Amino acid sequence: MTATTPSQDYEDISEREHGPERLAALRALLEREGLDGLLVPRTDEHQSEYLPGYAERVAWLTGFTGSNAFLVVLREEARVFTDGRYTLQVRAQTIGPAFTPDDMTENPVSAYLAGLDLTGQRIGFDPWLHTIRGIKRIEAAIAKAGGTLVPTEGNLIDRLWADQPGRPDAPIVPHPLRYAGQPHGEKISAIASKVSDAGCDTVVLPQADGNAWLFNLRGSDVPQKPMFLSYALIGADGRAQLFVDPGKLTSEASAQLEGTVEVHETGSFESALEALGRQGAKVMVDPATVSKKVADTLKDAGATLHEASDPMEPLRARKNATEQAGARAAHVRDGVAVTRFLAWFEREAPKGQLDEIAAAEKLLAFRIETGALRDIAFTTISGAGANGAIVHYRVTTQSNAPITPGSLYLTDSGGQYLDGTTDITRTLPVGEPSDEHRRCYTLVLKGHIALARARFPKGTSGAHLDTLARQFLWQAGLDFAHGTGHGVGSYLGVHEGPARIAKQGHVALEPGMLLSNEPGYYREGAFGIRLENLVLVTEETDVGGDQPMLGFETITRAPFEPKLIDTTLMLRDEITWLNAFHADVHDAIAPHLEGEDLAYLERACAPLKAG
Amino acid sequence: MTATTPSQDYEDISEREHGPERLAALRALLEREGLDGLLVPRTDEHQSEYLPGYAERVAWLTGFTGSNAFLVVLREEARVFTDGRYTLQVRAQTIGPAFTPDDMTENPVSAYLAGLDLTGQRIGFDPWLHTIRGIKRIEAAIAKAGGTLVPTEGNLIDRLWADQPGRPDAPIVPHPLRYAGQPHGEKISAIASKVSDAGCDTVVLPQADGNAWLFNLRGSDVPQKPMFLSYALIGADGRAQLFVDPGKLTSEASAQLEGTVEVHETGSFESALEALGRQGAKVMVDPATVSKKVADTLKDAGATLHEASDPMEPLRARKNATEQAGARAAHVRDGVAVTRFLAWFEREAPKGQLDEIAAAEKLLAFRIETGALRDIAFTTISGAGANGAIVHYRVTTQSNAPITPGSLYLTDSGGQYLDGTTDITRTLPVGEPSDEHRRCYTLVLKGHIALARARFPKGTSGAHLDTLARQFLWQAGLDFAHGTGHGVGSYLGVHEGPARIAKQGHVALEPGMLLSNEPGYYREGAFGIRLENLVLVTEETDVGGDQPMLGFETITRAPFEPKLIDTTLMLRDEITWLNAFHADVHDAIAPHLEGEDLAYLERACAPLKAG
Repeated sequence: MTATTPSQDYEDISEREHGPERLAALRALLEREGLDGLLVPRTDEHQSEYLPGYAERVAWLTGFTGSNAFLVVLREEARVFTDGRYTLQVRAQTIGPAFTPDDMTENPVSAYLAGLDLTGQRIGFDPWLHTIRGIKRIEAAIAKAGGTLVPTEGNLIDRLWADQPGRPDAPIVPHPLRYAGQPHGEKISAIASKVSDAGCDTVVLPQADGNAWLFNLRGSDVPQKPMFLSYALIGADGRAQLFVDPGKLTSEASAQLEGTVEVHETGSFESALEALGRQGAKVMVDPATVSKKVADTLKDAGATLHEASDPMEPLRARKNATEQAGARAAHVRDGVAVTRFLAWFEREAPKGQLDEIAAAEKLLAFRIETGALRDIAFTTISGAGANGAIVHYRVTTQSNAPITPGSLYLTDSGGQYLDGTTDITRTLPVGEPSDEHRRCYTLVLKGHIALARARFPKGTSGAHLDTLARQFLWQAGLDFAHGTGHGVGSYLGVHEGPARIAKQGHVALEPGMLLSNEPGYYREGAFGIRLENLVLVTEETDVGGDQPMLGFETITRAPFEPKLIDTTLMLRDEITWLNAFHADVHDAIAPHLEGEDLAYLERACAPLKAG
Repeated sequence: MTATTPSQDYEDISEREHGPERLAALRALLEREGLDGLLVPRTDEHQSEYLPGYAERVAWLTGFTGSNAFLVVLREEARVFTDGRYTLQVRAQTIGPAFTPDDMTENPVSAYLAGLDLTGQRIGFDPWLHTIRGIKRIEAAIAKAGGTLVPTEGNLIDRLWADQPGRPDAPIVPHPLRYAGQPHGEKISAIASKVSDAGCDTVVLPQADGNAWLFNLRGSDVPQKPMFLSYALIGADGRAQLFVDPGKLTSEASAQLEGTVEVHETGSFESALEALGRQGAKVMVDPATVSKKVADTLKDAGATLHEASDPMEPLRARKNATEQAGARAAHVRDGVAVTRFLAWFEREAPKGQLDEIAAAEKLLAFRIETGALRDIAFTTISGAGANGAIVHYRVTTQSNAPITPGSLYLTDSGGQYLDGTTDITRTLPVGEPSDEHRRCYTLVLKGHIALARARFPKGTSGAHLDTLARQFLWQAGLDFAHGTGHGVGSYLGVHEGPARIAKQGHVALEPGMLLSNEPGYYREGAFGIRLENLVLVTEETDVGGDQPMLGFETITRAPFEPKLIDTTLMLRDEITWLNAFHADVHDAIAPHLEGEDLAYLERACAPLKAG
């Protein structure tokens, strides 16, 4: 996509010192607008998790740069809601008493609002930034508190933000069929069938990464995610409309769409919705991703809404044979880079001269040396010692900690390659680990293996399997406070729905889905452990018994750390799985390594004996 | 409760031969009433699973006697919906083409109705027999099909059923505090607090077994379930009203309620609802258990409904210390009877002279010999060979099969004792089992043990734990088509909400809950295996680690079958658990056995060595 070399920056980008003055300016603006408060969610018009610069409004206003936030500005208080991953960070990045941090898991925003006295108050919100489902809860809460929710004309933060970045204008290029595996026309037809089956005329597709998948196009509007901001409308008759800045489409991209997809300016999206309304169309919308603005525009113009889950998501989630082959190839390539890093780390770290940034930069250098890296898939988590226990740790020049002998080091990273997106976490000893490091690492590994080798019938969801990864930790009175696995895209987002392996992951797993398997354990102030491979859901044809089963194929190709494995805690079947995995890693990676790196691989992949 | 000796009858009670003529009479009545169809769910006015005789309307009309049914009578068709447990039975017990069997899991009643053309048709229903939630789906489906749902005046089946049993008039007696453990006044206060916390004035409690628990009373309106038909209203101020036939209350029961509970005739329940409406009361109703009739009566009279889950259920589910002690004592007593049966079976069955009824009668005789059995807890499942693979098998004089050497025999049974309700399943070899019998039994046992010895954090639901019981079967391509566990009452229903261990069991487990642990495996036409103990949810205080955990205490006291255990398939930890369980069984039961029975127990409980 870009001709520039992939890189990661380590600056502390928080502008917390400007928070109070910006907040004061916002309150003055609210007063001029006749409003008593404003809701500011951290998202964009596509409900994205990864944002273009112009949409980082919460960060601009408060200083908080985490990935999950919801700000409520009232006359006397400005409350920054986030979750347990960011408890420490939100306190460090916002200035009190101007801002009050809160936890949206323990104190949901709607519960907070419902408990206030907002009698007669008018609370503003930008209806492009809230989903149908999300704003419904908020609206009921504000009504209960005696207030009224009022849509704003345009975004009020944008009026104050002098040097706000412009809309991204990165070029949009074709994602070739040799990577995508299915022509975009077939994908459009599949969605049109679902729209027709539901008795609808059209579906609204608001997700940026979803439209990249659907039209076999890629962009670079958002760092580390090869997607582009757009909306789409797909009719039951197969009519496809893409709303995007046409100037961003390269001539190859335009040629690809020619004859199958109508391309319109993003600015004409609203009038297209109004046209649907005038036709009295029945329009399918996913209340979890379609914005209030889209819903109201449709309804006000006369359309009927049919709420249903996004028909694109399950199609995208099941990777086709080409995507699966691409993912395997990307993981061999990425595995070579990661294994070179692991070997380098084993040689260098015990000398006591490394720090978190140096390690992250070295890993990036090995990935760049593959010659195929388009970008990193997300900001590398490089956590030494106690920083490894911060689940979403981002190293900055301020936080950069030395990697000291006797500690553990956690690295969670991934690459964007044309044939696939990777995501891998390894936990490494710096010199000799302690018995407690080995015990905890082994308990996490046992959970990872239990999930990796699970078999399960059709209809089983991630919530049913999540327990397998936790059971050994639970026996020891331990647990981890994040999900065990998320969906992963094909040269797209590293987080992708609809399935996940988590307590609330109630979507059934289906063959072809690509998911992470990443149990962990975190001891605050001491160390963090996470062991992550990617797995494809497969049909197991050689199980025997009464019925076919599903299972997982692990496609990550880098070894675990034998020094951290206590085989006396492991069962024969677990060691058998681990030895087979290491044999696969060895066979795939060894031809690409030499010298000390190859020697490292041989040692790491040597079969273990039951303890 | 009753002075009669507990018994089980083995007659085929289906009156299938009368089905067509009764259906014709119903259709004639519908025509006179200006109706085109009628919905007949198998339940009563309290949404009970276990019915008094007068409410067995589906059985009377169709001949089908299973526990789950929903009948839709239309002009041209009468469709009997049930589930996979009853596929064979519903075909055998109904006469075609008058009745068409269907499966409500594969083809939900609402989907069936929505797919019909009911233009202009009026479909009747008895609003006492449908919940708020249940009828909402049905109503939408009938509307989609062009029809109208019409409440009937009284129940139309009752007008045709000449010899319909009367309302039960069994006496209602106190359930003493030494068994109940908590005065009914405290239970009423706890519910009143929940009503008040929700900002409501009153809650409607329609469940017969719930009211038996709440008022510390027991009855015998329904076979095998010591409950009585009633409604209750509990106010936020603690006012308690019980609607029941006052003539059924013994003087001791009346004395117990005196001063704390107002007793009213059942017939005055509707006027009490209307009075609430006239006061403009806000009334808490559980849409899953409160009937459409109750909801409409309240709304029509001016009340506001607040939908919430029944506040009684979580209180009842957490057994108090007295109930827990009672459950343990009941399980020792019941375990003696069951172990005597197991010993007798091992001696007698290989001779080839037993049949299913003889075995069930012998087990009942041993339970009666405890001197404490009030009733059986449910109809004993006594399945020889292939009949063991029918999950809800009820032996009749027609089906009674011989117990033949070389086969497996499955027995699922329970007792009602004043101090607790028991539920136990054992699978027994008749002489020497085959290797395949042993392999499958051991896979089921491994799942049973994995659940029994699980530890898990607060917030974990039965859906998260269900997988532990299935994982070894899944590895072998096997599974079982029922939940792994259900809640159990204290001298009450053997099925009790709200928690269960099942794929859809999303209620968190809490300390004090009493549940079954009963994985199985069924090979159609060959054999069935199910291994069931009851477990109490406990707080595990000696786990160590970072956080407290919950776990299970197994309270059933009867051994498994060493002849069916293949120790080469078992892990050391599993054998350790099994040996500890058998030691507990031995210590509890041995003092009550002698001679051949004691010798059997010693053999069955002898420690196993890892294979």
